[in-house]
Amino acid sequence: MTRILAGLGALAIALAANQAQADTLIDNVNGITVSEDGTVVRFTGIVIDDDGRVREIVKRGGDRPKNVDFREDGKGRVMLPGFIDAHAHVMGVGLGALTLDLQETNSLAEAQAAIRAFADANPSRPWIIGRGWNQEKWGLGRFPTASELDAVLPDRPVFMERVDGHAAWVNTEALKRASITAATKDPVGGRITRKAGSRDPEGVFVDAAIELVGKVLPSPRPEDNDLAFRKAQQIFFADGITAVADMGTSVEAWQTFRRAGDLGALKLRIMSYADSIASMELIAGPRPTPWLYEDRLRLNGIKLYMDGALGSRGALLKESYADEGSHFGLPLLSSAQLRNLMSKASMGEFQVAVHAIGDAANAEVLGAIEELSEAYKGDRRWRIEHAQIVDPQDIARFGKHGIIASMQPVHQTSDRLMAEARLGENRLDGAYAWRSIAAQGAPLAFGSDAPVERTDVFAGLAAAISRTDANGDPFGGWHPEEVVTREAAIAAYTAGGAYAGFAEGRFGKLVAGERADFILVDTDPLLASPSELRATKVIETWVGGEKVYSAN
Amino acid sequence: MTRILAGLGALAIALAANQAQADTLIDNVNGITVSEDGTVVRFTGIVIDDDGRVREIVKRGGDRPKNVDFREDGKGRVMLPGFIDAHAHVMGVGLGALTLDLQETNSLAEAQAAIRAFADANPSRPWIIGRGWNQEKWGLGRFPTASELDAVLPDRPVFMERVDGHAAWVNTEALKRASITAATKDPVGGRITRKAGSRDPEGVFVDAAIELVGKVLPSPRPEDNDLAFRKAQQIFFADGITAVADMGTSVEAWQTFRRAGDLGALKLRIMSYADSIASMELIAGPRPTPWLYEDRLRLNGIKLYMDGALGSRGALLKESYADEGSHFGLPLLSSAQLRNLMSKASMGEFQVAVHAIGDAANAEVLGAIEELSEAYKGDRRWRIEHAQIVDPQDIARFGKHGIIASMQPVHQTSDRLMAEARLGENRLDGAYAWRSIAAQGAPLAFGSDAPVERTDVFAGLAAAISRTDANGDPFGGWHPEEVVTREAAIAAYTAGGAYAGFAEGRFGKLVAGERADFILVDTDPLLASPSELRATKVIETWVGGEKVYSAN
Repeated sequence: MTRILAGLGALAIALAANQAQADTLIDNVNGITVSEDGTVVRFTGIVIDDDGRVREIVKRGGDRPKNVDFREDGKGRVMLPGFIDAHAHVMGVGLGALTLDLQETNSLAEAQAAIRAFADANPSRPWIIGRGWNQEKWGLGRFPTASELDAVLPDRPVFMERVDGHAAWVNTEALKRASITAATKDPVGGRITRKAGSRDPEGVFVDAAIELVGKVLPSPRPEDNDLAFRKAQQIFFADGITAVADMGTSVEAWQTFRRAGDLGALKLRIMSYADSIASMELIAGPRPTPWLYEDRLRLNGIKLYMDGALGSRGALLKESYADEGSHFGLPLLSSAQLRNLMSKASMGEFQVAVHAIGDAANAEVLGAIEELSEAYKGDRRWRIEHAQIVDPQDIARFGKHGIIASMQPVHQTSDRLMAEARLGENRLDGAYAWRSIAAQGAPLAFGSDAPVERTDVFAGLAAAISRTDANGDPFGGWHPEEVVTREAAIAAYTAGGAYAGFAEGRFGKLVAGERADFILVDTDPLLASPSELRATKVIETWVGGEKVYSAN
Repeated sequence: MTRILAGLGALAIALAANQAQADTLIDNVNGITVSEDGTVVRFTGIVIDDDGRVREIVKRGGDRPKNVDFREDGKGRVMLPGFIDAHAHVMGVGLGALTLDLQETNSLAEAQAAIRAFADANPSRPWIIGRGWNQEKWGLGRFPTASELDAVLPDRPVFMERVDGHAAWVNTEALKRASITAATKDPVGGRITRKAGSRDPEGVFVDAAIELVGKVLPSPRPEDNDLAFRKAQQIFFADGITAVADMGTSVEAWQTFRRAGDLGALKLRIMSYADSIASMELIAGPRPTPWLYEDRLRLNGIKLYMDGALGSRGALLKESYADEGSHFGLPLLSSAQLRNLMSKASMGEFQVAVHAIGDAANAEVLGAIEELSEAYKGDRRWRIEHAQIVDPQDIARFGKHGIIASMQPVHQTSDRLMAEARLGENRLDGAYAWRSIAAQGAPLAFGSDAPVERTDVFAGLAAAISRTDANGDPFGGWHPEEVVTREAAIAAYTAGGAYAGFAEGRFGKLVAGERADFILVDTDPLLASPSELRATKVIETWVGGEKVYSAN
């Protein structure tokens, strides 16, 4: 052997060792992965290659792979694919974590105390901003008022978003900053609450009216956005979520994601849906972006809003609200506008995701999809977001044109009493109708709508299979015919979410060739009771073969 | 040797071969590279590694490297580092190439004929858009008028930018679209030409007034921008330019660059300077971006405008215009605004590049740099763009605080008659004063200001060393004491441009470790006459070891 070849031999050993370093076997796990169709595969080990992809799944009794350099003991823990949250607001989660959270308050008085305490703890903040209040949960029976904020904080402007983001509660100082007076008119698609017997604003702004105050809020600076994004990423990982469909990405949010990507700090996978045609074109140009940063970011399409939410009576109904006789909700787009926006996106092969809560909104969007499917053929994966209240007559329409139902199980448990009030007992047959919609052939993708709800997938799984809340109420489940199987629920939180974002084959399942995104938990979701499911602890979260969260 | 080691040996040979595939020697060249300080290194071969970097420079009589897999014969051609255009407008070059170019027209009549022909050739374009006219070159002695456009194109709106971008010439239909009437006032920092003895607009809009019509122009769609970018890239490569400082990058332009980068189509290296604080923050966030796409894109900082141009009498002078007695030009920023914007950028470690043409503008910017250098220490590389007319008393100030003079040699030859008219013979001692400014220690970076001038570096080199134009005029050179050496001129178009954009060590020189960006040409710029320099042919252009242009 010449000296050169001897040298090459040494090089080869170095290279081979280097190559093999990244081939890691995590053994002794109770592994579960579920296909889009609900087929379960169980395994006991997983081999990850140096690109962070799954090289091989090892089944019980199968040969253990020999050529791996690292072995880790999974200690018998349950391994699942990383969850995919098919509907969340990434920057909302992060910025929300930096502001006051009122979701745990159970009364107006508790909220007032929390606002005072937050203001005291943040004396330099020019505005006191928060979110998460819910007058239904407080048992208030009405919206809160500006005076009730003034009582605890008269000197600094206060802006508190309702839990569903469809209303804002402000104090008198904020009204002043926004120049809102009795003369201010309700904008189209929005409403300002008024004091009894007068035009004076009472302190709450619904839907399109929110912007009247929202526009004077100081915008987060880029560094605030960076901080918020890192916070959001931690929150998702801590709950076992490794990929998110970001519903309504602003240009600023996109640039925040890219900054993280450019610096190697983007670990979460984000499927983005732009907040407007203008944002979509500025972000992506004439076509969706490619997958960026090793399948961590893509601008898939656009998010549109057909209506508002049920809680604030913005959802568009076929018949009037049971608890507000003459009111049908507010369409946020005309039929023509909806079709124009959908066409504009579809011409560029962008995916279209439309928020539709009320039965009339769902019917409108279904109709638009049916029409546009003639012109825009191929694999479009039209998404309806929420699809909360669907006229039973319209459910079959979900099975056509590849429409995806992007639904949030926890909304059912949070909303059920409110939904009964808004609609009455007899109009709930198509409410949160997961099983019926899926039975028509519509792929399900489950999400949280965070920060509207928490990013707790196990609570979602428990709701999905039981239609009961954390207290086990109502006994036997609310409209229990609409539960889905455990397998279907897990699929909707993993492979289904990937399919809904054109990410199948990249992540969502633990199969050879897909990204090694997985979690280790302490509970088997195919065997646990709903309450055990809710108590599940995420022990570790991995993305692309890299550990990004550890509970310890 | 075990079977495994034997296997590894085979692997090593395969890997080594693979590795070596990209090690390419281009031999038999007349290679020249110049340092920032003008030191010339000559070489006869270059070895490029598989990352597209220079591995080794081979000098005459030195050992030829043995372990290369590919050898190319340079056929004795001259090899130079790829040129760096330190001041250009990338999208302007590309979009300009898609619109009508009037730069070659020598009279109003020629321009009219060209506009008619272009309109006929593009019957579906709603607006006829172009640039490049110069009433000085036409010998018109006045601005052209709307009527002169109406005469050839009455039915479609016409918008023609002046060669320097500081004025726009429109027809009556365009005035109508923009609702410009006798009642329209001149905006601050701008001027509308008026018909003699009336307030009626005459058809030309200067500086800040351009936007009055500009705002009704249809914006290019993302796909137009993509096409324009690809066109621009071709234009730069054909002229041997491999890197550009993009002066005034809009968010749309940045996104166009990123789209190209994401798709692997970004070959040109771009050092970006945002067109506003808002763009800078949206593009980069709180700090300059990292170098992206293997040193092909970075948001370095911000471009500010202190004044306009000399041709349109927008340049801010210490004494009034010789050919318009009471006029001093127009400051585009107040002293306080300039300092505020510079501070805002500097706080985030962004680089500041300020356009300053007139002597008063240069003095103002120098003063601001002197003040801000107290607060913002470290390696700031403050850039003054153009620095065309500098009060001789102020020239010494360029040598302090690391100020970079970013100048465009061809402007001197294009502007000399106009500059004499604007300033008179006695105020030209600090005009285009390359040598004097460099002698004070200010690093020079040369550019084209394309599309204001062509991207012809050899014309720039010829002007830089001779102060004569393509006709050899004026004999002996215009203020010939301000020529620079060939070495200094080449440095200012290569290493100097890299230094001015914080890119030294990455590209700009052909030395081991830097990117293999080079050109092959048919003329030795250290030996050729000015007319030979102007006739130089770029035969091939390479970026990062990849051939991106070939004349054949």
